[in-house]
Amino acid sequence: MKIFLECIPCFVNEAFNVSRRVTDDEAVQERVLRAVLAKASELSFSQSPPHMGYEIHRIIREETGNDDPYSEDKTHCNRLALGMYPDLRKKVLASDDPFETAVRLSIAGNILDFGVGILTQEMAASTLAETIRDSLTRPFAFDNLPLLRQAVEEADDILYLGDNAGEIVFDRLFIEQMPAGKVTFVVKGGPIINDATREDAEAAGMTSLVSVVDNGSRVPGTILELCSPEFRERFDAADLVIAKGQGNYETLSEVDRKIFFLLKAKCPVIARDIGCEVGDIVVSGDGRSPSAAKRAE
Amino acid sequence: MKIFLECIPCFVNEAFNVSRRVTDDEAVQERVLRAVLAKASELSFSQSPPHMGYEIHRIIREETGNDDPYSEDKTHCNRLALGMYPDLRKKVLASDDPFETAVRLSIAGNILDFGVGILTQEMAASTLAETIRDSLTRPFAFDNLPLLRQAVEEADDILYLGDNAGEIVFDRLFIEQMPAGKVTFVVKGGPIINDATREDAEAAGMTSLVSVVDNGSRVPGTILELCSPEFRERFDAADLVIAKGQGNYETLSEVDRKIFFLLKAKCPVIARDIGCEVGDIVVSGDGRSPSAAKRAE
Repeated sequence: MKIFLECIPCFVNEAFNVSRRVTDDEAVQERVLRAVLAKASELSFSQSPPHMGYEIHRIIREETGNDDPYSEDKTHCNRLALGMYPDLRKKVLASDDPFETAVRLSIAGNILDFGVGILTQEMAASTLAETIRDSLTRPFAFDNLPLLRQAVEEADDILYLGDNAGEIVFDRLFIEQMPAGKVTFVVKGGPIINDATREDAEAAGMTSLVSVVDNGSRVPGTILELCSPEFRERFDAADLVIAKGQGNYETLSEVDRKIFFLLKAKCPVIARDIGCEVGDIVVSGDGRSPSAAKRAE
Repeated sequence: MKIFLECIPCFVNEAFNVSRRVTDDEAVQERVLRAVLAKASELSFSQSPPHMGYEIHRIIREETGNDDPYSEDKTHCNRLALGMYPDLRKKVLASDDPFETAVRLSIAGNILDFGVGILTQEMAASTLAETIRDSLTRPFAFDNLPLLRQAVEEADDILYLGDNAGEIVFDRLFIEQMPAGKVTFVVKGGPIINDATREDAEAAGMTSLVSVVDNGSRVPGTILELCSPEFRERFDAADLVIAKGQGNYETLSEVDRKIFFLLKAKCPVIARDIGCEVGDIVVSGDGRSPSAAKRAE
């Protein structure tokens, strides 16, 4: 998905909000904001939105010296999700369709996203509880669950691109429905917003369940040209890619290969691109991106 | 009032919204937005916010070739207000305190502001009717009406700085409570957002009531150094200045002379600077700006 004009005010809002979250020093906040404005004024709109997210957070790191501003939020969300894990696992196993229940819960976990500017640690627990309730019964935006089920059954090498800390515990519920030997879980190469890193995969118990690799980059999504050669090889070799969250959709929706996107739509621009409503839970089309599938219709 | 950091995302939002209002051509919208981002990245924060409003609308004029994008809105608001004028005039004359009622109505008219990004022609009538009802009974944020009354009684040369088209009809209700020979009404030197120009003063019947001059500039406020020498002389010579609206407050609040600011607070940053709440109706302190008065306490 490309950058739309309406992403620009949103980038500036994000830069402003994040700079205030990271520092009380108004001179630093001002430097961040000026640098982001200058960068945005020259931005190529043929890139995907997470390119700019990458730039914003690079500027924040440089100006504040804080390499991991969401460290505490990530720890908090991992603990929160792990506290719910035993009950949720029981719920999956006791349900009529454990696969579907696990998919729904993994998408519910996608609400733990500090990149959309509204979530705080304080509201994480209640927001998550409400989203879980909603996600267990809300109709999927597209009726693609059978396709995903079949793809998982048929695949021998599944690459699961994770999204956020905390959310990764919900991904675990879903991955527990797959043959462990077939799955490789992917984390980010370093801290970026509250995206899951190897540390979070360890905290979530993911590393004892399946193979975990990092993608070699610090982007809130998967920009292949910024990922490591090792990751790109894995990406090309996998016969099924499951990609969690908006950032992965934004950066991979136009990549020409079989990918299932699983996410909760939180941004109106992304929802429009997918062809769904904000709030919807999405399992994307036939392995192509929803917009590619739409174009092919 | 100086530019605060939180004004910056708001400037970018405004540029985006106005560019979409003026043209459907996305290439033009993009040029506007890029130019505003570049300008904002180098903005001096020692200026007042309307400096940036001035730049945004200059860029919009240059990029779109549209010299007066709010022309229709101004005509609409003048007609709307003139349609209400006879009844409102009766209400003023029949009230226990015509001066206070007229002040309240002139502040109610301040809601007709297309510069804050939320008003549309379609909602103008209902928003205005609701604001009138509210403004006739809502307590003033500061108890300064007696000071204003006394200042008007004592002054021989009152300079009344107008704000928006439509609103100017409500100013007329207030100015009708003053000796006509003592009042000079000030309009902008050319179209800027929906600020009142000489054309609006004529439409509102202001030119047949009092002397009307323009300030020689196209700024959504009164930046003295951008005004004509003739206006600056009038400004210095007047023994009372009444300034309507947020833009005049933002640009004149730190000018060292006796000014009464009359406005409805619509922006949280301005409300904080004044020391009131968003939604409040304000007659500022003892002729100094509210913040200057606060500093002097």
